[in-house]
Amino acid sequence: MNSPPNGQQLRSLATQTALMDAAETLIANNGAHRVTIKDIVREAGQKNESVLQYHFRNIQGLIAAIHQRRNQQIREKRAQMLKKLEGSKSKLTLHDLCELMVYPTFSLARTDNQFRHYAAAFSHEIVLSEDSALTKVSKSGGGGKSGMKVGDLLRQTLPHLDTATYQARMELAVRMCSAAVSNHMRNKRPTKGPAADFFISNLVDALEGLLIAKPSLKTKG
Amino acid sequence: MNSPPNGQQLRSLATQTALMDAAETLIANNGAHRVTIKDIVREAGQKNESVLQYHFRNIQGLIAAIHQRRNQQIREKRAQMLKKLEGSKSKLTLHDLCELMVYPTFSLARTDNQFRHYAAAFSHEIVLSEDSALTKVSKSGGGGKSGMKVGDLLRQTLPHLDTATYQARMELAVRMCSAAVSNHMRNKRPTKGPAADFFISNLVDALEGLLIAKPSLKTKG
Repeated sequence: MNSPPNGQQLRSLATQTALMDAAETLIANNGAHRVTIKDIVREAGQKNESVLQYHFRNIQGLIAAIHQRRNQQIREKRAQMLKKLEGSKSKLTLHDLCELMVYPTFSLARTDNQFRHYAAAFSHEIVLSEDSALTKVSKSGGGGKSGMKVGDLLRQTLPHLDTATYQARMELAVRMCSAAVSNHMRNKRPTKGPAADFFISNLVDALEGLLIAKPSLKTKG
Repeated sequence: MNSPPNGQQLRSLATQTALMDAAETLIANNGAHRVTIKDIVREAGQKNESVLQYHFRNIQGLIAAIHQRRNQQIREKRAQMLKKLEGSKSKLTLHDLCELMVYPTFSLARTDNQFRHYAAAFSHEIVLSEDSALTKVSKSGGGGKSGMKVGDLLRQTLPHLDTATYQARMELAVRMCSAAVSNHMRNKRPTKGPAADFFISNLVDALEGLLIAKPSLKTKG
């Protein structure tokens, strides 16, 4: 049985959160290359660099922890959205599934400014991934039970694409969405007002078009 | 009247080309952050770092010259392709225009290995551009007379998109294509064989779908 955290555990958790928040904010504003442990510790209001080492070993450990907490949030958000949509209709459309690809991250950024820094800081990692962007996204926020469910439904909704074409389209889809979100999150008010609604809704439309497009004769080979 | 270059001018041109080639190759392999003047000069088979300063002032000057030569090649290639297509039919389709967006770079990379290094080295700059990716691409290989002509024809072929939606779609299109090409050019044989044909042809299909997709009611607002 888990016992409730004691005072020291709570303080430890608060320090860890402060360090993760600080890293997200600094990397979003300056890029990962230009952020040092010293910067992060100072931004987190801590006095000693050893605090980062103590909690995360090094900057890689800190970034891994950041991804872990955000991936979990995205997966949970997607699960909620999926449950709600499935409760409202008997069969999800391709448009619904495209929304399920991009809205979880966007909605979290809308309600949590700190999450927005995360999206601005790390989305381009997926865009520039040298390996499969689809694999990368499945291991991160796009994965988990809800992500796999959406993936399965997407595949079923696109029976006119053979396996290679489906995978190539998903690669393009993931890179396009990550590039768009990465860039958009650097705007002044990326999640508020009509411009934000237009951005995300147009992204879903484009994503649907990209996925549903009929393969040309050249592609079929 | 231009007189033919003399021996010294020819040597000067050869040195400039060697420095540009070296920078493209090194940046493609290691990323711009990790390449120094010393590396470039050595890769170019030159002995003295001052040679780069003499011809290009600094690394920024060298990169500007690289973009200039490549942009010109892309624009000329697009002009040739456009002329050929327009000679073969009375009206270009959206599919033709999508080909004209991505084939010039791809064809040049196919016939010139050094050009391929350029595409691998710099395509991600467009993907991650903080300003409009469309503006960035218009100022580079996507611009010039042939680029503007393709842009005008694209706009005419997509009358169902209002101006804001058209621009937002083109932003997504440009970022998607640049991300795809940037990533693809890092493969072992990115422009040869059936896998290369499939890559570029599927990219054109996806691009067409992304652009032609009907705006949803949400997007229309």
